[in-house]
Amino acid sequence: MRSPTRLKFPIVVLGIQIIFIVLFALTVEYDKSADAKFDIQHPRNVTDRNPPENEVSKYYPMFQDVHVMIFIGFGFLMTFLKRYGFSAVGLNLLIAALILQWATLVQGYLHSDGNVHISITSMITADFAAATVLITFGAVLGKVSPLQMVVVALIEVVLATLNEKVGVQIFQVSDIGGSIFVHAFGAFFGLALARVLYDEDVERSTKEGSVYHSDLFAMIGTIFLWLFWPSFNSALAVGDDQHRAVLNTYMALAACCIVTFAISALVDGEGKFDMVHVQNATLAGGVAVGTSADMMIQPVGALVVGAVAGVLSTCGYRFITPFLTSKLKLHDTCGVNNLHGMPAVLAAVIGSIAAAVANTDTYDDPEFAKIKLYVDVSPGEGRTAGQQGGYQMLALAVTLAIAIVGGVITGFIIKFIPMFVAPKKEQLFEDEPYWGVPDDHRTYPNIPII
Amino acid sequence: MRSPTRLKFPIVVLGIQIIFIVLFALTVEYDKSADAKFDIQHPRNVTDRNPPENEVSKYYPMFQDVHVMIFIGFGFLMTFLKRYGFSAVGLNLLIAALILQWATLVQGYLHSDGNVHISITSMITADFAAATVLITFGAVLGKVSPLQMVVVALIEVVLATLNEKVGVQIFQVSDIGGSIFVHAFGAFFGLALARVLYDEDVERSTKEGSVYHSDLFAMIGTIFLWLFWPSFNSALAVGDDQHRAVLNTYMALAACCIVTFAISALVDGEGKFDMVHVQNATLAGGVAVGTSADMMIQPVGALVVGAVAGVLSTCGYRFITPFLTSKLKLHDTCGVNNLHGMPAVLAAVIGSIAAAVANTDTYDDPEFAKIKLYVDVSPGEGRTAGQQGGYQMLALAVTLAIAIVGGVITGFIIKFIPMFVAPKKEQLFEDEPYWGVPDDHRTYPNIPII
Amino acid sequence: MRSPTRLKFPIVVLGIQIIFIVLFALTVEYDKSADAKFDIQHPRNVTDRNPPENEVSKYYPMFQDVHVMIFIGFGFLMTFLKRYGFSAVGLNLLIAALILQWATLVQGYLHSDGNVHISITSMITADFAAATVLITFGAVLGKVSPLQMVVVALIEVVLATLNEKVGVQIFQVSDIGGSIFVHAFGAFFGLALARVLYDEDVERSTKEGSVYHSDLFAMIGTIFLWLFWPSFNSALAVGDDQHRAVLNTYMALAACCIVTFAISALVDGEGKFDMVHVQNATLAGGVAVGTSADMMIQPVGALVVGAVAGVLSTCGYRFITPFLTSKLKLHDTCGVNNLHGMPAVLAAVIGSIAAAVANTDTYDDPEFAKIKLYVDVSPGEGRTAGQQGGYQMLALAVTLAIAIVGGVITGFIIKFIPMFVAPKKEQLFEDEPYWGVPDDHRTYPNIPII
Repeated sequence: MRSPTRLKFPIVVLGIQIIFIVLFALTVEYDKSADAKFDIQHPRNVTDRNPPENEVSKYYPMFQDVHVMIFIGFGFLMTFLKRYGFSAVGLNLLIAALILQWATLVQGYLHSDGNVHISITSMITADFAAATVLITFGAVLGKVSPLQMVVVALIEVVLATLNEKVGVQIFQVSDIGGSIFVHAFGAFFGLALARVLYDEDVERSTKEGSVYHSDLFAMIGTIFLWLFWPSFNSALAVGDDQHRAVLNTYMALAACCIVTFAISALVDGEGKFDMVHVQNATLAGGVAVGTSADMMIQPVGALVVGAVAGVLSTCGYRFITPFLTSKLKLHDTCGVNNLHGMPAVLAAVIGSIAAAVANTDTYDDPEFAKIKLYVDVSPGEGRTAGQQGGYQMLALAVTLAIAIVGGVITGFIIKFIPMFVAPKKEQLFEDEPYWGVPDDHRTYPNIPII
Repeated sequence: MRSPTRLKFPIVVLGIQIIFIVLFALTVEYDKSADAKFDIQHPRNVTDRNPPENEVSKYYPMFQDVHVMIFIGFGFLMTFLKRYGFSAVGLNLLIAALILQWATLVQGYLHSDGNVHISITSMITADFAAATVLITFGAVLGKVSPLQMVVVALIEVVLATLNEKVGVQIFQVSDIGGSIFVHAFGAFFGLALARVLYDEDVERSTKEGSVYHSDLFAMIGTIFLWLFWPSFNSALAVGDDQHRAVLNTYMALAACCIVTFAISALVDGEGKFDMVHVQNATLAGGVAVGTSADMMIQPVGALVVGAVAGVLSTCGYRFITPFLTSKLKLHDTCGVNNLHGMPAVLAAVIGSIAAAVANTDTYDDPEFAKIKLYVDVSPGEGRTAGQQGGYQMLALAVTLAIAIVGGVITGFIIKFIPMFVAPKKEQLFEDEPYWGVPDDHRTYPNIPII
Repeated sequence: MRSPTRLKFPIVVLGIQIIFIVLFALTVEYDKSADAKFDIQHPRNVTDRNPPENEVSKYYPMFQDVHVMIFIGFGFLMTFLKRYGFSAVGLNLLIAALILQWATLVQGYLHSDGNVHISITSMITADFAAATVLITFGAVLGKVSPLQMVVVALIEVVLATLNEKVGVQIFQVSDIGGSIFVHAFGAFFGLALARVLYDEDVERSTKEGSVYHSDLFAMIGTIFLWLFWPSFNSALAVGDDQHRAVLNTYMALAACCIVTFAISALVDGEGKFDMVHVQNATLAGGVAVGTSADMMIQPVGALVVGAVAGVLSTCGYRFITPFLTSKLKLHDTCGVNNLHGMPAVLAAVIGSIAAAVANTDTYDDPEFAKIKLYVDVSPGEGRTAGQQGGYQMLALAVTLAIAIVGGVITGFIIKFIPMFVAPKKEQLFEDEPYWGVPDDHRTYPNIPII
């Protein structure tokens, strides 16, 4: 049986790559620190004991942690579906690789004047853009064609970058781990998209579920996300801010993890752990502490935020996801509302409170206060701490608005423009329409096929 | 069927998390290098080409390697059991996340005066504590309930921390890779525990074994442990000591690996490789070189230690484990005696010899001699090298004593206090009592169920 | 049934390890930076805020990325075969561990005068040697016994090191990512080997194929290779060269990835993605940019190189591999010609062109020009840029010659010396002759066994 997007997919994607190449030729160059013309950081002398460090050394280890989260973490987390593993890890790779290029361009155009300069930090922010879209992917996993997902990625990156520019440059909001600009945006964009794409066939599919080994593959994704989340929340911070972001995220994740196990057993009729909760809700602490990770929330604050996120997320999977599907006709395949959506709203609220109570007793560092929180610590320099808290909430509100409206519009585009080819009933949660599959795929796992 | 720990588990674990939160609120704060009040390492000037580095940058990459070992390495290594994969990787996550918090508190209380200060180095030592308990977990894998394992973790962290305090602060012993304080302690605590919990049903279970794909999942754990072991053995070393610890561990592992393959084929009746040996004994070189990794054992010394560990560990799996089960009623699921126990004793002996022969010709660095080995290199400054060698062995003896006695007592506590609910015969090596499992779990792999 | 190499394998491998130990004892010592005698980089004072950094800190994070590529990347990539997963990941570990020691010796003897000094950089170059042999392994995967592969490794490391010495020291060629000295050498050595070992039984085997989950295991390898390839191509570069090598590799991989998906669907009769392409051709961009990664090829250059590599590699799998098998009697199990061979030739050509057009306008850094490209930028200092381009091509030609002749000779050695025991017909692509396997291996996947 032929793929529904047989010629359309290659033509569109090759066209996109050609456009990227043209745009790179016209507008992209190396940052000075990566350009041989400007050897500012090049060791002048091989016997120099302590040459100035190129910024690639400083950012690279955490960049790679984030990189692993995007491609292994998100990719394998989504392999839990028994008949959609190739698509989960494969399309995750495709979409993310496309975004690395597209976000480099879009972020470059929106954040700089004229030419785009690529560097290790632009690589990190491009990975953040990929995270945003992959969160959205989770909401519609198994229900969109590869071509539809390409379209979603192209549109969403533009809107997410615009939203972040508004939040960071205009509202001057602090969101070091991207809980507002990455997690909330990606989740609510995805939920809006999923609502528009809703079809009753989805609920009748017998393919939306896991088998024993697909759940173990998914745990590879979960654990790498859990391990490297401190890097995600601190990659772009410096000095003690970075140290604190690492500590707060580590503590929030630890508390979230054990609360998730407890609540999972508590809300289950038989008192058993639910693999969906362990795969997902254990990570909610990383989202919930994202905005305030580099703020002085104290170790106990991190634990409390993580524990609350664990309760919120686990109960979300148990009670809210079924409600959304049955009452609101919103089918959220990976439960991104529980892992990213609600914890990101919590993150924004915590961040707002932490910003509002900031003062010079806690932050005896005028640099931090001025550069990162925009709090009025020396008279006449701008906002009060309370005002900053307000701006933090404003950024969340604007994020939700742009994400939901953007998701709805994008949903209509990919649903009603026929060339993007939505999957038919029997193609839901199924690799076979898009992939050459081994023979055992039909017979293993041995399930009735709708 | 209901979980045997239906309400008990959530109540106990939530209670523990609440206690942790209270203790953090009362006693835990950021280390100065992570506190915005003390901006000692914060770049004062964004144009500063070479700001003083925060210690998070220095330790973070190796911390993450260790972190991967704990959660991916130990977690997936234990997925080799065909019907216990969810528990292996899931409980590993739960127990380790619990220990990250508990060890932060316990180590803080025992090692410092008054308040606990968390930092990237406390994160590393908390991961070491997790390793200790997860080694113990390997000895009783499939034979304890999640609630029993939580109790084990709480008790063992206290005893292991006490033991390490005695060894490091009183005996002033050098054990950079934790072979004595982590591997020997965890293994012998686990063996004592397994002896107390022994039940003949264990040997009659048909579920203690692997399937083809569960063995491949286990190899994910093995390889990551093998790769990052040099980080485990050197994370807390500095300068040339760290460099040497990396080199020695890398060489010991390389030799251990190929000797393991050779001996595995040699001791097998059909001359074939045994997956159990490849998954485990290849790692014994990392344990065996742990105490002496930063000492001047020379590259050839590292190779010899690794090769001997490979022989010891592989023969242990082939001959000693069956002997322990049949003669001593000690059933060691993962063979931690072979991977951790015996190689750790070897490590302590090697470390003792290396310390005893240390001299100022080899270590032309009074700092190392004074700070790390406590060898009398400048007259009047304390011990002779030979005395240091003796203290190294004393630390091993004390470790074995505390571990074995502690393991026996802990075994009685979890065996005879009914609320911790030991698994029944048919619940051994089986996820189903504690986890919601997919339908295929009953039929795949297609084995008779006792 | 007994293993065909029952006693031969352990005796040979133990003998090799003993020889390694003797050679290490006689000739290997720590590099000064890892030797306690020379505390040049040891912090003299624990309160020193900014001690000189030991080189282990500088190289270690990227070393570990490369290490993961060798053992997880190559190891799991080869688990795609349904009945050869233990051998794929197990023999990969064995062979690589053997090479870590052997390459340390061989590279030390050929590159230095007298004694071998081991350090973090010798660890990286030993990993590169392992990569060379593992690429070769891919060409003959499933068709050689473990003992044959040990012999291949011993011979190939010597020839590859000699070839690299000629290229780097005599021709003074720049090949930062090893596309010529690692990828081209390993691939063409492997192809020559595979040609000599050709047997018609191979094409009649029903075991050369994947199952659904073996393809997912292989994706673990693919993704880690894809993620860490920028580290491979930049581990030994410094300053802005390293930064640029990271950026160019990242961009080349991103373009290669999405072009691979497009071409894979385009050349498939049904318009579907082929897992073989996604597992392999997505990586070709990393090979193709390897030689020029640290040169000023510009971001758009990296994209173009990656995109061309994606087309070349995917079309190679679709059209050239079947042609080689049917017409040239060259069976290339993993298609290393497509992933490593042809893209490495492309890499050499790109590198030659980039070197030939280098000039002082682009490289305003006499150090780079002099040390890395040997371009005549200040009159009288040697070659012109054009001459350097010529030498780059010469290095490729010599590499191909040594690799092919070496591969043919090695093929005859392992084919016709009986003690190395080539697999028989029914032992092809099958773990069972060499491994103790779980019961389900015979029945799962449920395929007819030839």
